[in-house]
Amino acid sequence: MFKVNDNYLKLPGSYLFSTIGKKVAAYTAANPDKSIIRLGIGDVTQPLAPAIIDALHDAVDEMAAAETFHGYAPDLGYEFLRNAMAKNDYQDKGCDISADEVFISDGAKCDSGNIQEIFSVDNKIAVCDPVYPVYVDTNVMAGRTGTYDPLKETWSDVIYMPCTADNNFAPELPKETPDIIYLCFPNNPTGSTITKAQLQEWVDYANKVGAVIIYDAAYEAYISEADVPHTIYECEGARTCAIELRSFSKNAGFTGVRLGATIIPKDLKCGDVTLHSLWARRHGTKYNGAPYIVQKAGEAVYSDAGKAQLSEQVAYYMNNAKVIYQGLKDAGYTVSGGVNAPYIWLKTPGSMTSWEFFDYLLENANVVGTPGSGFGPSGEGYFRLTAFGSYENTVAAIERIKKM
Amino acid sequence: MFKVNDNYLKLPGSYLFSTIGKKVAAYTAANPDKSIIRLGIGDVTQPLAPAIIDALHDAVDEMAAAETFHGYAPDLGYEFLRNAMAKNDYQDKGCDISADEVFISDGAKCDSGNIQEIFSVDNKIAVCDPVYPVYVDTNVMAGRTGTYDPLKETWSDVIYMPCTADNNFAPELPKETPDIIYLCFPNNPTGSTITKAQLQEWVDYANKVGAVIIYDAAYEAYISEADVPHTIYECEGARTCAIELRSFSKNAGFTGVRLGATIIPKDLKCGDVTLHSLWARRHGTKYNGAPYIVQKAGEAVYSDAGKAQLSEQVAYYMNNAKVIYQGLKDAGYTVSGGVNAPYIWLKTPGSMTSWEFFDYLLENANVVGTPGSGFGPSGEGYFRLTAFGSYENTVAAIERIKKM
Repeated sequence: MFKVNDNYLKLPGSYLFSTIGKKVAAYTAANPDKSIIRLGIGDVTQPLAPAIIDALHDAVDEMAAAETFHGYAPDLGYEFLRNAMAKNDYQDKGCDISADEVFISDGAKCDSGNIQEIFSVDNKIAVCDPVYPVYVDTNVMAGRTGTYDPLKETWSDVIYMPCTADNNFAPELPKETPDIIYLCFPNNPTGSTITKAQLQEWVDYANKVGAVIIYDAAYEAYISEADVPHTIYECEGARTCAIELRSFSKNAGFTGVRLGATIIPKDLKCGDVTLHSLWARRHGTKYNGAPYIVQKAGEAVYSDAGKAQLSEQVAYYMNNAKVIYQGLKDAGYTVSGGVNAPYIWLKTPGSMTSWEFFDYLLENANVVGTPGSGFGPSGEGYFRLTAFGSYENTVAAIERIKKM
Repeated sequence: MFKVNDNYLKLPGSYLFSTIGKKVAAYTAANPDKSIIRLGIGDVTQPLAPAIIDALHDAVDEMAAAETFHGYAPDLGYEFLRNAMAKNDYQDKGCDISADEVFISDGAKCDSGNIQEIFSVDNKIAVCDPVYPVYVDTNVMAGRTGTYDPLKETWSDVIYMPCTADNNFAPELPKETPDIIYLCFPNNPTGSTITKAQLQEWVDYANKVGAVIIYDAAYEAYISEADVPHTIYECEGARTCAIELRSFSKNAGFTGVRLGATIIPKDLKCGDVTLHSLWARRHGTKYNGAPYIVQKAGEAVYSDAGKAQLSEQVAYYMNNAKVIYQGLKDAGYTVSGGVNAPYIWLKTPGSMTSWEFFDYLLENANVVGTPGSGFGPSGEGYFRLTAFGSYENTVAAIERIKKM
């Protein structure tokens, strides 16, 4: 008789954003006359930039003729896109990353969920708390965590690194030595960042203790301050300890287009085994490449027109961030984030829990946000709003919140 | 110090098609004047059908305006595509599958590689031999297999079901009871099929012993004979024992577009746990949906125009299959397949091994095929040619082989 993967059964409830979706659907069904404004899931709303639309149309036309048709993509991605990323995201910034260290994928969520597969099930992970739930959940599913404590809302065998107002939302080096460290800056969900000097400390630490850092750089495009690193490879020694995850979802609006990349330097080894070779094997065996037309769209992100249009798009969202940040502050909330990230992190008022504030906001302002506790126990008492709505909706949401 | 997943290190060499790619690249580099004809990897060559191209352009245009822009897709796929599949592939054929039992993905390779994750690592798999390498390799990577015997080219703790000329390339029920049974009909690589009565025996067997069948129906569109089942859900009792994998790669030429689906009936359970809920959890946690534009292209596959155009495309490839089958037969080879599948399976001449024949064919005819031994030990002495080339190339390849 076949048996299921018991680790799946350890997961409490459903994936955070599925739960939110269900709650909102139930509220909408019960209140069909209410107009809901969604500042919850980090989904973009602006249309694809013209340079990307043009690239998509051109690529579709190529698929219509036998001479220019593209079947299976190269395992690790098309050279044109790997070259564009290596040059623009790394080499032009003085970072030593070559095109063959770039693995193209269908998005950072898949990569951040799948990357743990190449590590031993005995490895211990360290995560920021609060944190993007995919890091922990996928390690639970793989059996890399112990048991769940429903009161503390934590797993045994996971090292939590609290990020709260007390430490300015920047994690401290853990007391217990981890094998795998997940870091995400600019941070989801807190919107906080760390300086290059702070990140260098993490790289030095990882090299010293033999840990690998999985660095999620999905929000890099939103950095506005000078001293915030755009990639972990700005730090010396990162090539021997860090994997970087890149997304096209937030910088180019690809949430529904699906494109991402994972960078694994060839110097990153466990004994003689390069992690690069293991990830290449996984790609070759379990994946069949991102669609050609999507990879062509990704290339257009790096064209002059694409860069100009996307920088406007980022500015549009960051203006929303300013509206949310300032509006909430004016309304008396304690807020952070929103300067180098499209996320605003607010302290729930009074003694409200995160989910209580979620319900309160949904019912009284018809605004959807994300409960901080959904990202980890130290997120309790916090709440995330995103700047990815339209300007008009963002302004309207803040007006509603002010009136609450 | 972090450790890697040792199971990856057990895998001998690289993924079959990566090895072939490297061999062909080396030959081409050494012989730049030779024109290579590729009948190796099952990659299509015909352009996308006009109905699909139109759907892609329309969907791209939708992504260009805020009112019609699509961000994150629903976890399990858009309703329009799940409905189209449930209706056309199942309900219209009298099979009881509902839209919410259809999970949309970016392709059958990913699904066939990832599906093992929802099962216990202690489960024992049974595979046809020869077989699509992804089934075994992904179970090796998960630690579900024992040790590799390089002489026999088999893994301990895997049940191999030989499919050779002796049993007309149809597996027999295994002596040892498996937990998970991988079946693929029309078969890759042998091109063989089994009748509905034969498949019913497998369904009855799985229900009897409590095994789950993972049924890969990627080549369903190539069935030309009446008694060959198009889906396992034609069999009574399949809802309690079978998962079906569907691909858009071969019926619609989506190898570079990336779209697939996995069907998990809600009746398929281990105790109280439905496999449907586990796969939904995996989708929700590790996957972010197939691109909107690609799902719209998938919908067009089921339009009247799409159906007509794709039936022509399948007929085009099956004409190639006939050319290969008849040509090889005329040249004195022992051949099978090619009637309900785009694959022709031939016995290598004399005492040549599969890889010897690969080299011989590459060097003497400049034709690339796939060594049967790459699909498993019982594939040794066999060789696969695919009908997915252009008609002109197919004819030219057969002429060259005849002259060898």
